[in-house]
Order: sequence, then C-alpha cells, then structure tokens
Amino acid sequence: MSSTTSGTTWHRPAVPVRADRLWNRLMALSEIGRYLDEPSGLFGVNRLALTDADAEGRRVVKRWMEEAGLQVRVDRIGNVIGRRGGADDTLAPVMSGSHIDSVPTGGAFDGALGVIGALEVVRALDEDGARTRRPIEVAYFTDEEGARFGTDMLGSAVAVGRLGLDTALALTDRDGKSVGQELKRIGFLGEAQERLSPPHAYVECHIEQGPILDAAGMELGVVTGVQGISWQELTIGGRSAHAGTTPMSLRRDAGLAAARVNVKMHEMVRSGQYGAEMRATMGRIDVHPGRVNIVPSRVVCTVDLRNPDDRHMARAEHDLAEHLRALSAELGVTIDARRTAKTEHVQFADSVQTVIARHVTALGLKWQHILSGAGHDAQELASLCPTAMIFVPGLYEGISHNPRELSTSEACARGVEVLYRTMVELAA
Amino acid sequence: MSSTTSGTTWHRPAVPVRADRLWNRLMALSEIGRYLDEPSGLFGVNRLALTDADAEGRRVVKRWMEEAGLQVRVDRIGNVIGRRGGADDTLAPVMSGSHIDSVPTGGAFDGALGVIGALEVVRALDEDGARTRRPIEVAYFTDEEGARFGTDMLGSAVAVGRLGLDTALALTDRDGKSVGQELKRIGFLGEAQERLSPPHAYVECHIEQGPILDAAGMELGVVTGVQGISWQELTIGGRSAHAGTTPMSLRRDAGLAAARVNVKMHEMVRSGQYGAEMRATMGRIDVHPGRVNIVPSRVVCTVDLRNPDDRHMARAEHDLAEHLRALSAELGVTIDARRTAKTEHVQFADSVQTVIARHVTALGLKWQHILSGAGHDAQELASLCPTAMIFVPGLYEGISHNPRELSTSEACARGVEVLYRTMVELAA
Repeated sequence: MSSTTSGTTWHRPAVPVRADRLWNRLMALSEIGRYLDEPSGLFGVNRLALTDADAEGRRVVKRWMEEAGLQVRVDRIGNVIGRRGGADDTLAPVMSGSHIDSVPTGGAFDGALGVIGALEVVRALDEDGARTRRPIEVAYFTDEEGARFGTDMLGSAVAVGRLGLDTALALTDRDGKSVGQELKRIGFLGEAQERLSPPHAYVECHIEQGPILDAAGMELGVVTGVQGISWQELTIGGRSAHAGTTPMSLRRDAGLAAARVNVKMHEMVRSGQYGAEMRATMGRIDVHPGRVNIVPSRVVCTVDLRNPDDRHMARAEHDLAEHLRALSAELGVTIDARRTAKTEHVQFADSVQTVIARHVTALGLKWQHILSGAGHDAQELASLCPTAMIFVPGLYEGISHNPRELSTSEACARGVEVLYRTMVELAA
Repeated sequence: MSSTTSGTTWHRPAVPVRADRLWNRLMALSEIGRYLDEPSGLFGVNRLALTDADAEGRRVVKRWMEEAGLQVRVDRIGNVIGRRGGADDTLAPVMSGSHIDSVPTGGAFDGALGVIGALEVVRALDEDGARTRRPIEVAYFTDEEGARFGTDMLGSAVAVGRLGLDTALALTDRDGKSVGQELKRIGFLGEAQERLSPPHAYVECHIEQGPILDAAGMELGVVTGVQGISWQELTIGGRSAHAGTTPMSLRRDAGLAAARVNVKMHEMVRSGQYGAEMRATMGRIDVHPGRVNIVPSRVVCTVDLRNPDDRHMARAEHDLAEHLRALSAELGVTIDARRTAKTEHVQFADSVQTVIARHVTALGLKWQHILSGAGHDAQELASLCPTAMIFVPGLYEGISHNPRELSTSEACARGVEVLYRTMVELAA
C-alpha cells in the first residue's frame, strides 16, 4: 500500500510494532551485566564499554541482527551496523540506532531502547513483507557513555570524523587499558571502514532520562536538539602530610581544593548567572593516598557542565577557569584541567522533526518539543545528515543512570511505533 | 660506674650510641616497602600494617632483636617485645618502642626511629658490658597508624586493655580482610598474653612530624602529652542520576555533601572558635559510582579532628554533628557517622619528663617542652605506667606521612642518646 504525503511517496506500515516482543528483548538484554544494587535492593545493569558484559551484550544483539537477515559489519572502532537492503541499494540509507554500553549503575533502557527499537522496526517491516526504497541501517555505537575511557559518543564521533580513529583507539581507562586493546580482546575490532558515508537521515529513539515529559503529562517528545556539554578532568596536586601535626597554614590539601571546586560549581548554578538550565556535576573524585590521617596529596576529579545556551556555557567555563586559578594560589595546589568532551548546542533537522511530529500527531499522542539534556549518538550523526530523536518518558522523574530507571512497555512501544512510521516515510 | 642523682642510684652510660649504626639500620628498614613516589621523584615507604611489606619489616626487626640477645615474644595482637634481663628480673621492666608499620606514603623515620633507637640502646649497653637493675623491653606495636584497619594505636590499645582483643582481631580493611586473618597469614599471630603487666616506665623516641622544634631552633623536644584525636567515618547516601538530564533541584548528590562537610570543617578551623590549634582533615573520600556523568550515590569519607583542648574538641564535635544533620536535610542525603577513634588529651608523667630534661640539659642541647600533634603508642602506655616521649626535629617543616620526611643522622643520634641515658637511669 502506498500513499503520498507532502509530495513524497511512501509505504504506509500495515503491521504495528509489537510491544511484547520489544519488551522481552529489552528485558533479555538487561540480564547481561545485571547486578544487585545493594542500597536500593534493585537490579541494575553494568555493561561498561568493552568489558566482558558489554561484549556479551554485543554478541547477543549482533546475533539478533543476523537473525533478522541484516547484513552486519563491524568497523574499526567497534561500531556494529546491520543493513536491510532497499529497492534501490545505491541510495543512501535511513539509519537508526543508539548504544548498548551502560554506566556502571545503569538501567535496562538507556541506549538499549534505541537499538532494540530499530531492530523491532526491521521485524515489523519483515512481517509486513515490506520493501523500502532506501536501505535501512541499524547501528550500535561504541562507548556512548564515556564512563570508562572518559570520552563520550566515542564510536559515533569517530564514524562522523569528529574524532580521529587513532586517537580514539589510544584512549585508556584507569588501569591503562586502551580502547584498541579492549576491542581486540573482546573480538570487536572490525575491519569495516569507520567513516560513514552520509546517510539519508538518522532517527534515534531514546528514553528522556529526565522529568519534563512525565511532569507535563506528555506521551512522547520530539527532540529539537542537545544542550551543550563540557567535560573536564582536573588533576589537583597538593602535598601529603600528617593530619595531626601539620599546621593548617602549611597544608596543600588537594581534597579540600576538589571540595571547593564542587561547592563553587553549585554556587554558580544557584546564582542564576548562567541561565536557569545550567547543570553541574562532579561525578568522579579519586583521592590519594586516601587515608584518614593523611592530608590528600592528589585528586583526580571531573567537571560536567551542561547548558542549552552556548554563551552561558562559555561564560561558565571561563569563570570556573578563573576560579581554579584563584583557588590554586589560595591553597598552594596545582590544578591541571584537561578537556575530555566538549559539544556545543546541537540543533536537529526541522525536516526530520516535522516527519516525527506528523506521525505522533496522527497516532493521537500527547507530545511536545523538548531539548535533550543528555548527549546522544544522534548529535554526532547530525553533522553528517538530517537527524532528530524521539523521547520516551520514564517513571520516577525520569531517573536514569540508576537501577531505578524505568519506562513502561506501552511508552516504549509508542516511541518505536513512531520510529517505524518515521523511518518508513524517510526511506520511501 | 655508678652515681647518685636525685636520690636514685643508676648506671651512667660509658659508651655513647653510634649514629652511623643507627642510621644504617634506619636506611636498611626503609628499603622494605620502598616505592618511587611519581609526583615528587622521591622514594617513599609503604609498609601498611599486616601487608607483605610490613611482614618483611617485622621479620627483619625481630631478627635484629634476636641478634641483640633479646628474649622475643609475639603476643596475640601481633605486638613483638624483646626483653633484656636485669640484675633483678622480678622487677617491672623499663620499656621503649614504637611501630614499624607506615602509612602508604610514608618515610623512613616515623615509628622506625623509636624501635631501632631502642635497639641501639640495647647494643650500646651490650658494648658497655652494662647490666641494669631492671629488665629492659623493646617493643614494636601492631598497626599504630590505623591507615589500613581504621583504628590507630591498635596493638598498644589492646596491650593496655583499652581495646578488647576480639574487637581488634575482627576489624576489617576495605577488602574485608580482618586483622586476625592477616596476622595469621603473615605469621605474626602470637601466643603471648597481650595484656601488659605495668612496666616501671615507658619512654618513646619519635620524630616530631611538625615544624615547631625546627622553627624555634631546638635540637630536641621533651613531650608533655598528646592532643585529643577524634576520627569519624561518614557514609553519605544520595541517589545516582544522570548528570545531563537531572534537574539540580531533584538531585541527592552524595559527593556534594562530602565537599560541603570538608569545606565546613575548614571554616570551623578558620573561625578560631575552637582554639587556635584545632586541626581538621578529610583524608579519605571514596565516591560511588565515580563516573563523570553520574551524580554520586554514595560517599564514604573520614573526618580527623585534633585539638589540645578537650572542651574545644567536644564543642567542635557537637557543632559538626549539628551541621551534618542540617546538611542531610538540605541536600536530601543520609549521613551515618561512625566513630573510629577517640582519645582525649593525654598528659605524660612529670617524673619521666624530668629525667629526660635533665639528660638533654646535661648534653648541652637546646630543647623545649612540646605537645604532640600526632597520636603515639606512648599515649596508650601512659594509662599503664609513667610515660613520656623524646621528639627529634625533622627537616622541611617536619613534614611526615610523606616521602619527603627526613631527619638528620645527628638529630636522630641525639634523640637516641637521650633515650639511652633516660632508660639507664630509669632502669637503675
């Protein structure tokens, strides 16, 4: 069955996506890397990039791709892409995907929904016996979280050429293991060309990971873009000294310096000077030697700043750097700041947002436009082709990066149904 | 040769202690657990209690005791005590000693000087062919630092009965290994009775670990006592959440809470409300899950407070506890405080200080009375018998718990010479 909308001929899906099938696979994947989160008593997911758990998840999803008849390639940064041929295989594909790596305290939905959702689109097309004009590609990208090697959107950044392959392969984790070594060890150092030819369009379905949609009573979000992200790793050098005998005036307390930075970041947020939407987090704080009776000699800590307004972000970065200089002088410590990630506000394509919005509306769903607070592979693909995202609301104020992360089967299926219709239209 | 001073008959040493022999043994012991401190390029000492390095140090010093003809016993908390018989072996001994465990970033002198110095006293007595009326005992006590199992002065606290043997043996390190298991593993779970019969007196020679003596141009310090020490371990429970999407108002940031406590402690010091000598340190800060893009869900950190004035200390503890309650409410985190060490100001015996001071004066050395900022085994022994300490100044503002820790051969020999004369007089 074909139809014409806005001047484009496209195949209208006859078979809806199946909520149960989608859910079962989300749950099956969440058993890989599953752990009991002691404080909450909940099961969480720990599939830190390129660990054994991530490798097992990768193998399972790759098998699902193969079972769906996709032609699978693994590229030289470990991205895995499954291709469903189109009526005209010379045309650029419509691509969808996300990631299957997680933070160490993750849940079942972050990333996984986008990958398994895109696979569900393929299965619905197969059941429908449908053939799109353009090829369809389903991808999971390497280390989107950046929680192990310090740089997020790693695989997609390499795929679009923002990050060099050699640089990415040489990144190391805290134990000195490199991305390249670990990819090889887990059997995902592929041979396919990592630089993507521009797809026709990229659409990604993802949980919101925030409270906005749920609080507004919305069933889906059409994502307009991604707020700016700035990550720094601070190495603070002080001097270890005896906690009982060393006068306060002679100390160079690296731990105190980190604490002062953390408190300062929160004061900056509260000041309102950097917009109402500034967010600041010190997530990692490693203190050496880390003993009760020794003034800390060295701290490695991270600064994660987010802002939807690039000018606010630039001023926040500038003012924080000024503060680090002043603090360094005041406390007699050295502070080396290394930038580990930086993306400006990314604007998604109106053309793709329009297609998504039309299908959400046609399905009678309550929806709104929304700016993403989190970084996503889609922001990398946006530099290569028209891109947008679909957000599925989560429960518990949309909490994510936490075992409590939860979305309903219905909400997930709604998002993937819209993904299905959008991809089919774009691939027509 | 005998003489009478202050109504006591005592043997006047004819042979001085040998600076070179003392120094060589200090250096030899410092090679055990030696490591290269990357930031400074200096070699440090890491003989954390009951590790393999500590075990090797223990074996070497025990062999030195045996070579000096001492009768060696290992007690049930791993304290090692070597005894040199007196003319009347029914009399209570004069005891000296310290510890050979170190913090992970330690130097060659902390503890080691007291143990090797007391052994040098025995060797000087042997060379002199001297026999004291009372027996002499040389001890090294288990885990003085408390840097591994969280409770300092562990062995000496058990020896004087302040801490129960079973409680001490059951203490665990971060990996869940207990003191008892580790003592057994390294072969130092002895069978000797751990409760000491009160010695006649206890004298300990130690580096100052602070800047006071050097700044005042003093060659030795006669220690009047030890300031109060209060240790707490705080477990802060927050909620892990996505750093990009979670609004600041919905966060429960355990890392921020720890930072606020750290900053508050330093504000308390600066306020002057708790005396000019209050010291505060947050030495350990373990942050979970410790990733750049996750709001910390849990922090375990330590609070080390010192004060020479028990009333000031009590008020500081009280006010900090109040602050923790307020902070817990403000940030929506739980804070559990567990006391891991608490000693009030300890006053050393005038009688022993007088003997030390007389010998320092007789040697023509510049000296002053000094209160110890650090805890020492002597403060435990002080509850059992007349006790005092001799402090040897250090270089670089007396820095300690740092690879830079350094004292000169001459300064060490001066301290041990005074220890020698003092012990001989007390053992007469």
